[in-house]
Amino acid sequence: MAGNSFGQLFKITTFGESHGEALGVVIDGVPPNLELSQNDIQLDLDRRRPGQSKITTQRKEADQVEILSGVFEGKTTGQALALLIRNEDQRSQDYSNIKDVFRPGHADYTYQMKYGIRDYRGGGRASGRETACRVAAGAVAKKILDKEKIKIIAYTKAVADIVAQTIDYSVIEKNLVRAPDLKAAELMIQKIEQARLDRDSVGGVIEAVVKNCPPGLGDPVFDKLNARLAHALLSIGTIRGIEFGDGFSATKLKGSEHNDPFLKTDGKIRTKTNHAGGILGGISNGEDIILRVGVKPPSSIAQNQQTVDISGEDVSIQVKGRHDPCICPRVVPVVEAMIAVTLADCLLIQKSIRG
Amino acid sequence: MAGNSFGQLFKITTFGESHGEALGVVIDGVPPNLELSQNDIQLDLDRRRPGQSKITTQRKEADQVEILSGVFEGKTTGQALALLIRNEDQRSQDYSNIKDVFRPGHADYTYQMKYGIRDYRGGGRASGRETACRVAAGAVAKKILDKEKIKIIAYTKAVADIVAQTIDYSVIEKNLVRAPDLKAAELMIQKIEQARLDRDSVGGVIEAVVKNCPPGLGDPVFDKLNARLAHALLSIGTIRGIEFGDGFSATKLKGSEHNDPFLKTDGKIRTKTNHAGGILGGISNGEDIILRVGVKPPSSIAQNQQTVDISGEDVSIQVKGRHDPCICPRVVPVVEAMIAVTLADCLLIQKSIRG
Amino acid sequence: MAGNSFGQLFKITTFGESHGEALGVVIDGVPPNLELSQNDIQLDLDRRRPGQSKITTQRKEADQVEILSGVFEGKTTGQALALLIRNEDQRSQDYSNIKDVFRPGHADYTYQMKYGIRDYRGGGRASGRETACRVAAGAVAKKILDKEKIKIIAYTKAVADIVAQTIDYSVIEKNLVRAPDLKAAELMIQKIEQARLDRDSVGGVIEAVVKNCPPGLGDPVFDKLNARLAHALLSIGTIRGIEFGDGFSATKLKGSEHNDPFLKTDGKIRTKTNHAGGILGGISNGEDIILRVGVKPPSSIAQNQQTVDISGEDVSIQVKGRHDPCICPRVVPVVEAMIAVTLADCLLIQKSIRG
Amino acid sequence: MAGNSFGQLFKITTFGESHGEALGVVIDGVPPNLELSQNDIQLDLDRRRPGQSKITTQRKEADQVEILSGVFEGKTTGQALALLIRNEDQRSQDYSNIKDVFRPGHADYTYQMKYGIRDYRGGGRASGRETACRVAAGAVAKKILDKEKIKIIAYTKAVADIVAQTIDYSVIEKNLVRAPDLKAAELMIQKIEQARLDRDSVGGVIEAVVKNCPPGLGDPVFDKLNARLAHALLSIGTIRGIEFGDGFSATKLKGSEHNDPFLKTDGKIRTKTNHAGGILGGISNGEDIILRVGVKPPSSIAQNQQTVDISGEDVSIQVKGRHDPCICPRVVPVVEAMIAVTLADCLLIQKSIRG
Repeated sequence: MAGNSFGQLFKITTFGESHGEALGVVIDGVPPNLELSQNDIQLDLDRRRPGQSKITTQRKEADQVEILSGVFEGKTTGQALALLIRNEDQRSQDYSNIKDVFRPGHADYTYQMKYGIRDYRGGGRASGRETACRVAAGAVAKKILDKEKIKIIAYTKAVADIVAQTIDYSVIEKNLVRAPDLKAAELMIQKIEQARLDRDSVGGVIEAVVKNCPPGLGDPVFDKLNARLAHALLSIGTIRGIEFGDGFSATKLKGSEHNDPFLKTDGKIRTKTNHAGGILGGISNGEDIILRVGVKPPSSIAQNQQTVDISGEDVSIQVKGRHDPCICPRVVPVVEAMIAVTLADCLLIQKSIRG
Repeated sequence: MAGNSFGQLFKITTFGESHGEALGVVIDGVPPNLELSQNDIQLDLDRRRPGQSKITTQRKEADQVEILSGVFEGKTTGQALALLIRNEDQRSQDYSNIKDVFRPGHADYTYQMKYGIRDYRGGGRASGRETACRVAAGAVAKKILDKEKIKIIAYTKAVADIVAQTIDYSVIEKNLVRAPDLKAAELMIQKIEQARLDRDSVGGVIEAVVKNCPPGLGDPVFDKLNARLAHALLSIGTIRGIEFGDGFSATKLKGSEHNDPFLKTDGKIRTKTNHAGGILGGISNGEDIILRVGVKPPSSIAQNQQTVDISGEDVSIQVKGRHDPCICPRVVPVVEAMIAVTLADCLLIQKSIRG
Repeated sequence: MAGNSFGQLFKITTFGESHGEALGVVIDGVPPNLELSQNDIQLDLDRRRPGQSKITTQRKEADQVEILSGVFEGKTTGQALALLIRNEDQRSQDYSNIKDVFRPGHADYTYQMKYGIRDYRGGGRASGRETACRVAAGAVAKKILDKEKIKIIAYTKAVADIVAQTIDYSVIEKNLVRAPDLKAAELMIQKIEQARLDRDSVGGVIEAVVKNCPPGLGDPVFDKLNARLAHALLSIGTIRGIEFGDGFSATKLKGSEHNDPFLKTDGKIRTKTNHAGGILGGISNGEDIILRVGVKPPSSIAQNQQTVDISGEDVSIQVKGRHDPCICPRVVPVVEAMIAVTLADCLLIQKSIRG
Repeated sequence: MAGNSFGQLFKITTFGESHGEALGVVIDGVPPNLELSQNDIQLDLDRRRPGQSKITTQRKEADQVEILSGVFEGKTTGQALALLIRNEDQRSQDYSNIKDVFRPGHADYTYQMKYGIRDYRGGGRASGRETACRVAAGAVAKKILDKEKIKIIAYTKAVADIVAQTIDYSVIEKNLVRAPDLKAAELMIQKIEQARLDRDSVGGVIEAVVKNCPPGLGDPVFDKLNARLAHALLSIGTIRGIEFGDGFSATKLKGSEHNDPFLKTDGKIRTKTNHAGGILGGISNGEDIILRVGVKPPSSIAQNQQTVDISGEDVSIQVKGRHDPCICPRVVPVVEAMIAVTLADCLLIQKSIRG
C-alpha cells in the first residue's frame, strides 16, 4: 500500500535509503527446493553496481549481498527469503548543501510535500540506489524462469539520437553501454563521455525481449501481462514511457497490417508476424515478448541550476556527489529484473489455475 | 489476483461478458456522504456507449446503469457500491462461426491456452465491452476528485497520421472523434470512414491532462503515480504504449534541457517548465499531469483473414458482428475513468498519511 | 480494504443492504471448467433462507440466485463469477421508528460514528442478511473441494445450556435446529420457542468438522489455516469466539497429554489422537479439522429496551421487524460456507506451490 | 500471500528462522514524523526475550534490534522501516537428532508435506522465535496508538487451573508470570516449575484489554475488528482459541441479558454494561475492548515421546534444546504487539475514511 511491495504470489518488499545503513529485500512466495547461492545473486548485482566502468558513477559500493533467511543447505525452503546489502561509501556530507533545497528533476520537493519530512542524503528512498534490491530479487525470480527455459534479454537500444542498427545479443555484455551493436556502442560511449565533460547528462531507450515465454501468462481485465509489466517498469524512477510490440508506431498502421495471422508451424500454433509483441488480450501467446522503455537524462548534473529552497527563496545549486551521465547501462539489469519478477509471479498464478 | 480488481483503498471489481446477462462493478472504499445519482454515472456511460455516432459500432446498447447498493437517500454510505448494466443487443449467433477459430489480434487463442475453455461470444470477458464498468466506476471516482477540484481532460490527439494542431478543450465534445481541434477532427473522421469502407481499421493517440492535482499523490518505489497510471491504462485492451510528460522524446534531451527549474509564483512553489509531466519521483508535484497512450487499430475487421482453428487447421474468416473502425472516440472516456479511479485511490491513501 | 472482500486466489467481494435493491457477490479466481448450475447454489441458499421453519424469522425471501457472469454452457470459464439475489420482502417502514435510535447490541451507533451516515433500514449493510452472499460463494467453493473429496459438516452443538450428547451427522438436516442429536434437538427447539414467547432470544455453539482435508493447507506465520478460519468465522456478525481442537480446554492439559503422537496406519502417517484439531503450525496435517464457534443471542428482541437516540436522549424502543429467536440453525450453512471459501483459497495457493 | 505479511495500510512483513542468520521485519506504512529510537523497540523485545527469568527457556539471545531504514534524525520518514535481529545462540547441533523425525505437536510433518523440504533447526520458520519480529513491529505500532492515547494491557489470566482472582494492572510486570494478581502468580509459578521438573509443560489463558479506543475502528463484513484481531492472534502458533467480551459464556445468556443498553454519561454516548467487549457489528464502540486467548501447553517437552520418522518408522524421541515449560509470560507482549499492529492499521484506514 505504501509502495514498497510488488507482486502477488511472488512478492517482493524492499527497504533502504541511499545513505542509510543498508538496503534489502524480502521475497515472499519463493517456491521451495530451488538451488540458490549468494553468487547467483551477486552476478546480477555486479552488472548494476556503481563504479563498474568509466561511464558510470564512481561511488564505490561492493553491493555484497547476504542471504539472511529462506535458504537451507543451498536450497530455498519456501519461507520468506531476505537479502541484505550494507551501504559502505556514504559521503552524506556531499548532501548537506541540499538539505533545504529542491533539486530540479528530483523527488526532494514531492517527498517534502507528501510526508512533511525527508531524508535528503542522496535522495534517500527516492534514490536509484533502491534498484539494487530489484536486481537481487530478479536474480531469484530468474531461478524460477530458468526451470521453464524462459530467458530475458535487455539492452541499450539508443543513447540520445544514436540508435543500434543491428541486434547481436552476444555483444551486449562486451561493451560498456550494453548495446547490441558494437559500432553504435562506440558512438554512444562518446556521447556519454561528452555529456560528462559538459557537466550534463543524456537519456536513451532500452529494449527487452523475452524468449520462450509459454502462452497463458497474465490475467484478464486489470492484470493484463502488459499492464503489469508497465507497472513494474514505470516504477523504475528514470523511465518515462513504455511500449509493447509495434507500440506507438502501431497507431499509424491499419488493422489489416497490424493483426498477426495465426498459422501452424512444427505442430505448434504460432503467429506469422509479431506486431503485438507476444501478448494478446493481456495474455502471453508464446511469441517473443518485446517492449521498449524510454529512459530520461539523469537529473543530477554538475552544472549550476536555478531552483528554490524550502522557504521558496531562489537559490542556485550545483549537484555534487558522484553521478551517472547516462543511466542506461546500469538500468539494463534493472529492466531485466523487473520483467523477471513479473513473469515469475505470473507463472505461479498460472500454476494455481491449471496446475 | 485473477485480474478483475483494481485499486487499494478505492477498489473496483468488475464482471461480465460481452454477450452474457450483464456487466457490473462493485466499488469498495467509496467515502461516505457523497451525493450520487444514477444520472451522474449515466452521463459518462453515454459517452462510451456503442451506437452513439456514425463512426462507432452500431450495436444497440442503452447501457442503462442501476445502483444496487451503497447509496441511501441520494448519498453514499461508505458501503460497497454495486452498479449493474444489463446486456440487451446480444446477437450471439454472429459469433457461432468463430466458435472454434482464433481471430487474429484477439484473445481467443490466449484465453483458450490459459483456461482450456472460453466464452467465444463477442470475445466474452476479453471484449472491450467490459470497459463500460470502468467508466461507471470512473464516474463515482470523479465525485471524489470534484471535491478537490481535480479535473481530467482527455482527447483524441491523433488518428493514424493526422495529428491535432491546436488544443481547444471546449471543442472536444463537439466533434464525433473527440479531438481538441475541429479542423483536424474533420480529417480524422474522413480517415475513419474510409477505413470502414475499406473493411479495415485505424489507430490513434489519446492525450490526457489532469488539472489541479495537488502535490503528494503517488507512493515511492513500486507504486509511483506514473507506474499506477501505466498499469491502469495499459489494462485497457486496445492500448499499446504510454508516455508521461516529454515521454520518449525526453530520451533525446540533455539533463539541462529536461530538468524543470523550481520557482515561486503567487506564493506557491511551481516549476518553470513541465517536461516531467507533473510527476517527480513518482509523486505528483502540483503541475498538470500529462500523458499520452497509443491506441492500436481494432483487430475486428470485415476483410477476409487467414488464421487457424482450434485443431490448427488453416481457415479463412471474416469477423462479422458490428465493430468500430477506430476506437479512439469511445476510449477517451475510458482513459478519463481509469485516471479518475487511480487518482481517487491515491487521494484516499494520502489522506491516511497526512489526514 | 473497506471490508467487502475476502480471500486471495479465491476471492469474494460482496455487496448489498438488508432492505436495498439486491445483494450479490463477485467471485474472482474460480478455476475454469467446473460444472456449475444455479441449482447448485440455490440448495445451500435454501438452507440459510429466512422463513424456512417455525423457529426462524418469518420474513419472506425466496433468495433466488441469478448467475450473471463467469459461467458458459454450464461450466465456469475462469472469469469473474457474479451472483445476484434481489430483495423482495422489504418492509422498510418497520424501521422508520429506529431511524434516529441506536438499538442495543446492533451496529447502529458504530456505523454512525464510523461513517457519519447509515442506512438504518433493517441494519443496512450490518444486517445478517449479507450472509446470503457468503452461502452463495460457499456453494461455488464447495465445487472445488468436491474434486478433492473434502467435506465440511457443521451443526448446532448447543443451544443455551442444552448440549448435543451424540454426534450423528445423518440427522442434522432432519431437525429444525440442525443438531446432530434428535433428542437434544427437541429440547433446543423448545428452548427457542420459549425465548420467542418471552420476546427474548438465545445463543448457542456450532461445531464444524472438515473431513478428508489433505495435509499442506495454510501458510506459515500470519496466514496459518486456523488464523484464516478464525478471520473468516469471526467476520460473521453473530459469532463471539472460536476454538480449534481441544481449544480452551487445552489450556488445562499438560504437553504430554495434548501432543498427538504420530504413527503409521495403512501406509499413511497419521496422529493417534487429534487434540490439535487437524492443524499443526498453522498447516493442515490430514486429520479432521475440528472447530467450534460461540453464537451470541440475537440482539433483536421484541421487549422494551432502554437506549438513546442520535442526540443522546434517553428513549425506550421495541425492535419491530421479524427476527430469529436463535440464529444457530441459519448460521450453520454460513459457517460451512466460510470454511469452504477459506479452504478453496488455501487449495489454490497450495497448487501454486507444489503444482 | 505466502503468509509472511500482515496488515493493509500498516503492513508488516517478517522473515527469519530460529537458527538462521537473523530475524527481521519490514514495516510499510509507518506515518512520517513519529519519534522513534532503537530503545523504544528494545524495551518490548526485552519483555519477550528468552532467558529473562527462571521460568523461561535458558537460550541466551540479547535480541538486540538494529534500525536499518525508515528513520532519519530520530524520526520516521514514512518510508519502509526495517528492523534486524541477529541470532546469536544457535546450538543447531541440538537438533541434528530430529533431522528426520516428526516431533509431536510441532510443524515438522506439516512443513515437510507442504514444501517437500524444511529447515529442521529449532523448528526453522515455524519456531516461536519469529514472534520477536511481531514484538518489534508492535513497538512501532504503539507509537501510533500513543498519539491517540490508546493503551493495550495484556496479562496471564490463568495457568492450567489457576485463575487470577483480582485484576491489578500495576503488578503485571512485577511477577515472572505476568499475572494481574500476585497471590495467583505465586501459585502459577509453582505450577510451571513443577511442570519443568516433570519434563512436561502447561498452558494458560491470556486476557487483553484495550483502553481508550475511539469508536469507528474496524470495517464491515469481512474485516470486522474482531475478525482481524482473531486473525492476528490465532496466527501466534501457540494460541488455540479466542473470545471477545463475554465470549463463549454469551452463548448461555438471553438477548435481554447480553445486550448492552446505551446511555449518555458526561456528554458521551456509552453503554451501561460491556458484554460485547467494545465491538458492535465489527466496529469499536468506544468501550474497553476485551478479549481472551487460550494458550496450549508447549509441545517441546523433555520426556520420551513416541512418533515416526520421515519414512514412517516408529521412533522414540526426547526433544532436546532449551524450552519454556509455560509460554504465557513471554506470549503476553506478543499478544499486545499483535493487537497494536491491528489497531494501528485500523486507525490509518479510518483516517482515510473520515480524515
